[in-house]
Amino acid sequence: MAEYTKVALDAMGGDYAPAEIIKGAVDAVNKRKDIRVVVVGKEDIIKAELAKYTYDKEQIEIRNASEVIETAEPPVMAIREKRDSSLVVGMNMVRQKEADALVSAGSSGAILVGGQVIVGRIKGVERPPLAPLLPTKKGFSLLIDCGANVDARPSHLVQFAKMGSIYMENVMGVKNPKVAIVNIGAEEEKGNALVKETFPMLKACPEIHFTGSIEARNIPYGDADVVVCEAFAGNIILKLYEGVGGVLVDKIKEGMMKSLRTKIGALLVKPALKETMKGFDAGEYGGAPLLGLNGLVVKTHGNSKAREVCNSIIQCVTFKEQKINEKIRDSIQKEKE
Amino acid sequence: MAEYTKVALDAMGGDYAPAEIIKGAVDAVNKRKDIRVVVVGKEDIIKAELAKYTYDKEQIEIRNASEVIETAEPPVMAIREKRDSSLVVGMNMVRQKEADALVSAGSSGAILVGGQVIVGRIKGVERPPLAPLLPTKKGFSLLIDCGANVDARPSHLVQFAKMGSIYMENVMGVKNPKVAIVNIGAEEEKGNALVKETFPMLKACPEIHFTGSIEARNIPYGDADVVVCEAFAGNIILKLYEGVGGVLVDKIKEGMMKSLRTKIGALLVKPALKETMKGFDAGEYGGAPLLGLNGLVVKTHGNSKAREVCNSIIQCVTFKEQKINEKIRDSIQKEKE
Repeated sequence: MAEYTKVALDAMGGDYAPAEIIKGAVDAVNKRKDIRVVVVGKEDIIKAELAKYTYDKEQIEIRNASEVIETAEPPVMAIREKRDSSLVVGMNMVRQKEADALVSAGSSGAILVGGQVIVGRIKGVERPPLAPLLPTKKGFSLLIDCGANVDARPSHLVQFAKMGSIYMENVMGVKNPKVAIVNIGAEEEKGNALVKETFPMLKACPEIHFTGSIEARNIPYGDADVVVCEAFAGNIILKLYEGVGGVLVDKIKEGMMKSLRTKIGALLVKPALKETMKGFDAGEYGGAPLLGLNGLVVKTHGNSKAREVCNSIIQCVTFKEQKINEKIRDSIQKEKE
Repeated sequence: MAEYTKVALDAMGGDYAPAEIIKGAVDAVNKRKDIRVVVVGKEDIIKAELAKYTYDKEQIEIRNASEVIETAEPPVMAIREKRDSSLVVGMNMVRQKEADALVSAGSSGAILVGGQVIVGRIKGVERPPLAPLLPTKKGFSLLIDCGANVDARPSHLVQFAKMGSIYMENVMGVKNPKVAIVNIGAEEEKGNALVKETFPMLKACPEIHFTGSIEARNIPYGDADVVVCEAFAGNIILKLYEGVGGVLVDKIKEGMMKSLRTKIGALLVKPALKETMKGFDAGEYGGAPLLGLNGLVVKTHGNSKAREVCNSIIQCVTFKEQKINEKIRDSIQKEKE
């Protein structure tokens, strides 16, 4: 492939598809000359959307796909049967090395299944983890795994730790990232069976900077850069983050609307408050990579707008440039020696 | 016992012990004539503290205990060896029916161990869960279990659901409480092995109002009254609630301190904001009961001040009046028939 990164973009997945998704593609190519986007989906719809914008026509092409996978569809069936869906067509492009990466805001389940079944795992990777970035007080941390495959084994968690470290160091630019395992106490002897078994394995792993256990309370403070856990726990962490944040913001708005006095105060604090809270918004950092695949698949939030889609596309460039998959392959290979 | 509720209070446990703990006892007896508090701990210290307040001397007595269990001590050893600690002396009072309940802000681990070893389980209860109240958008929900015993079995979770329902209905006054199991999706077929096995058992349980799965995102919105999960997950939920809340409040303060303009705005909104946020503070509702014991043990936050201690003591009255333990015994008994 050439000196640009080619990203297949699922134009039909997500709450704001196709308009915001396509706008994200236009924003990305207008920001960076080293990106080509293949917008995958219903051609006529995509054409009509693209006609609204000015951009270098060389940087965006359209690939027609007649079907759409809906969020509620059973993933395995959807991937198997909707061969001409935007997601499956995009994944096949990655499989056949026609594209370096796929970005989708569509059904998580279908993305996870498609990633494994169509794109395929790097040899030696036991389970590809979905690893979103969580906003923290200091910046962001990688939460690994939040996928759909629960009941992980210790060896899975060790691979998550390695892949997460590589990603944070090389894509996000965090030097010597601190890796911690989610636990119910700081002491090594605490935890459930899985954590107790995994802890010494992580401790013995020379390739990562393992700092021990992290209690959930300390995750938002950014005490670890790579937060390792099994997907059931990861899912709870990711979704509770959203839930508690959402309710607190609602409560604050309610408090600010109480009287004329508070409404005036709200006018004065709002812009600065918005600015501070922006640092606590995951969308700033793009989507969650599904790591350990023969290619890159990035899942952006279902409610992604153009900004997050654009950031997710740009993220793929660093992933390619830094040869993340080669690094993962080497790291997993070492394990087997 | 008489027509009052007798509560043993561990005066030596918690970040603000003994001053705030003892103030909580005084506040409780000054609010309610139907309470007697036995303040357990170093007699001279307690006497000096109590001398600061005015209260009905009949309602508070002192029980000397020469030792203190520190937070960092290994729980099993602490309970076994510190026979004259305030916690062990208080628990023995409950065991010997000298007190209806024990309230402590001390070491969670020691409280959990002592509850089981000294106070003892109700016959048929497999594992006593620790069940804190979580603030939600609508009010509060009971999170059950947050104890130290992880890797629970499905039968444990079913008992948690029953005990939690009894507590919410009779102590917290929530009619026909909605019970849900924490899961990574709404569908019955989702989840880890434990959830998949427990789900149909909860569905088949006639004594509870089971509404299915709850995703972590919806917990803060109050979609369920009794949130059932295994203790590892419960611990993550409880602590992440605190962490995300803490960081968001810090971020808001930071945003409000940015300029003169925002500082003026902050002065105008602060009182109303404080009032709204109070509804999102777990301390309002008292401590977390350790359910299923031959007596009541209530764990209040380590950082409890007088208000939470007072609320926790008052909570014990309803627990006794509503004969919660008899109800739990009946419910567990039915299971065996």
